[in-house]
Amino acid sequence: MKRQFDLLRKTMPLIHNITNYVTVNDVANILLACGGSPIMSDEVEDVEDITSICNGLNINIGTLHKSSIEGMLRAGKKANDLHHPILLDPVGAGASKFRTETALRLMQELNLAVIRGNISEIKTLALGSGTTKGVDADVSDAVTEENLEQAIEFVKAFSKKTGTIIAVTGRIDLVTDGNRCYVIRNGRPEMGKITGTGCQLSGMMTAFITANPDEMLEAAAAAVCAMGLAGEIGWSRMQTGDGNATYRNRIIDAIYNMTGDILEKGANYEIR
Amino acid sequence: MKRQFDLLRKTMPLIHNITNYVTVNDVANILLACGGSPIMSDEVEDVEDITSICNGLNINIGTLHKSSIEGMLRAGKKANDLHHPILLDPVGAGASKFRTETALRLMQELNLAVIRGNISEIKTLALGSGTTKGVDADVSDAVTEENLEQAIEFVKAFSKKTGTIIAVTGRIDLVTDGNRCYVIRNGRPEMGKITGTGCQLSGMMTAFITANPDEMLEAAAAAVCAMGLAGEIGWSRMQTGDGNATYRNRIIDAIYNMTGDILEKGANYEIR
Amino acid sequence: MKRQFDLLRKTMPLIHNITNYVTVNDVANILLACGGSPIMSDEVEDVEDITSICNGLNINIGTLHKSSIEGMLRAGKKANDLHHPILLDPVGAGASKFRTETALRLMQELNLAVIRGNISEIKTLALGSGTTKGVDADVSDAVTEENLEQAIEFVKAFSKKTGTIIAVTGRIDLVTDGNRCYVIRNGRPEMGKITGTGCQLSGMMTAFITANPDEMLEAAAAAVCAMGLAGEIGWSRMQTGDGNATYRNRIIDAIYNMTGDILEKGANYEIR
Repeated sequence: MKRQFDLLRKTMPLIHNITNYVTVNDVANILLACGGSPIMSDEVEDVEDITSICNGLNINIGTLHKSSIEGMLRAGKKANDLHHPILLDPVGAGASKFRTETALRLMQELNLAVIRGNISEIKTLALGSGTTKGVDADVSDAVTEENLEQAIEFVKAFSKKTGTIIAVTGRIDLVTDGNRCYVIRNGRPEMGKITGTGCQLSGMMTAFITANPDEMLEAAAAAVCAMGLAGEIGWSRMQTGDGNATYRNRIIDAIYNMTGDILEKGANYEIR
Repeated sequence: MKRQFDLLRKTMPLIHNITNYVTVNDVANILLACGGSPIMSDEVEDVEDITSICNGLNINIGTLHKSSIEGMLRAGKKANDLHHPILLDPVGAGASKFRTETALRLMQELNLAVIRGNISEIKTLALGSGTTKGVDADVSDAVTEENLEQAIEFVKAFSKKTGTIIAVTGRIDLVTDGNRCYVIRNGRPEMGKITGTGCQLSGMMTAFITANPDEMLEAAAAAVCAMGLAGEIGWSRMQTGDGNATYRNRIIDAIYNMTGDILEKGANYEIR
Repeated sequence: MKRQFDLLRKTMPLIHNITNYVTVNDVANILLACGGSPIMSDEVEDVEDITSICNGLNINIGTLHKSSIEGMLRAGKKANDLHHPILLDPVGAGASKFRTETALRLMQELNLAVIRGNISEIKTLALGSGTTKGVDADVSDAVTEENLEQAIEFVKAFSKKTGTIIAVTGRIDLVTDGNRCYVIRNGRPEMGKITGTGCQLSGMMTAFITANPDEMLEAAAAAVCAMGLAGEIGWSRMQTGDGNATYRNRIIDAIYNMTGDILEKGANYEIR
């Protein structure tokens, strides 16, 4: 973990983000905190130039607009041409037909390095559109110690089928390239009370994999550990009366102050 | 107040927000803080699916785009079909013809549960478009102890005419269903130095009324008291050198830490 | 500096912002912190009415959309008609053809009071489009003590040619009307680890120049000093474990608590 983080801090990759307007500011600040540098652009006429000066691309379909899809595709194809890694965060896949179909289309037309989402979103993409009824409904239970074995098999199979690293985050996080699966137990449940911790992780993970093209699986797992560990460190600094707004700041602050050694020591994972 | 707040915390309603890009992150975080769950979507092709999986709809016309109006109407009609409550926050009604006319159109085409705005916005809607020249100009004075009686009559009459709960917020807040009027004296003037406390209240109020369909007036009033009380609690935690950025966080934090008992005890209102 | 700041606090100008969705919330909050009042609107049908009730216009081309350019032009022409000052922040000029050309078009079609950017953006505009390849690449070095003389000549010449106050911010800031040049040494390098300190400065500078129509150069320089000084004050309040998220809040807080006397005393500049 230390090696991947130190390389991120050293190479300071420039990340092109096409992301939702709800959490975009936090995504930018956590990218700066971890050592990357963010640029946001979703306009069709702008995205190819912007991607060309960047090193990696983060596509997030929260608050998706029809007009942005063409921008995502153009940026993605340019990134593929330039061999920049692309991460897809399929926010709300399963919650609407529009989002599910857009995520599937992006998977089909682009060569993605990583897909990162919650278990409901990933199951929606793996099982096709139209089967879910809500953001958490009609998908199997969250990943737990009880169903861990099957969950690992599921994400490994989906990773093999798609040729993409799959990162499923929740109480227990799974990151796999189809062969090995990192099972990560960092983080705190209170992180779910902050909007956009998932979006932030996707932005930061894009920086991690961009800085570590030869060790993408390890880098993606390191990003998950870093986010969870920041959630633990941030929580330890909370004072009486603090709530989710302050917690949001403390998590980004913890990434800002993280070092490779802190990450190496605090990362809580096994490889299966 | 306690009953309405406890029911919100228990039922955790999912709220669909079509809201401006200035304050959307704070709206999401205060919804999480109060016990609700936010989804943002304004794309025409997405809004009906999203509203269908939610329990209530918050429409806010700040940074209004022409392309979003159709999304507001479609989401609103679907919400009406599903008997989900809709709240309208007519941000900037009176400041431009475009916003005034859009607010009036939404009032005409949708069955709204609540309209929440400042006195200028509400007067613009009550008196028709074209008579105001700015955000505060050419409308009568703010609600004060001196004109309280007439202000109450005005909002009651507008509520009766529209069949909608009217919530006017300012130094003194008024919330009425046409018969009874909550007169609320929580809050602090420094809240006006934070962008989006009104937008945040609208998001949170949507969660309150959604969780309390049989007591919407009380729920709307409870949301106003909760926001004002959070402003008081947040201010009491301010330290030397703190300003409006920190105050913003402390208010959301205070909602996060609020309980039904704290709200019941701190709510400062009379019913007229 | 004190006079310009005191006048801003006294006149409380209303500022129309057409700005990017990444940092818009911070722009609104710093405008409130300094004594101004923000309105955001980029819809073509809305901008003329909104600019008409405001006192100044801030145009920022970060996350630029094709559809917003017409809004920028209409708002700008209305602002010119009404003799409201316009500030242009050419975010990413040089990073894409689309942004560079849009910035140049705005310069051509509008009468701008101030252009504020980093040295790369300003050099791109001064030397024409197509010569830069990235956000910092292919432009001369940052302004340093070594190249200060040439940098001052460069910005003075560009200011004379355009008839616009030019503000270049970085380690050393330059603000010139073509004759005199403020050389400012406030601020801290860690401000670069927060997204949007430049956008925030542009919003606040618009309020400063709007409140001081007869002393625009001094007002623009005062805004730069205020931002840098807030960075110094904010940094002095940082505690162990704090990072860029907390620093962002402390800077806005420092503007909120600033007085004309604090600014006068802390401003670190010479006139060349």
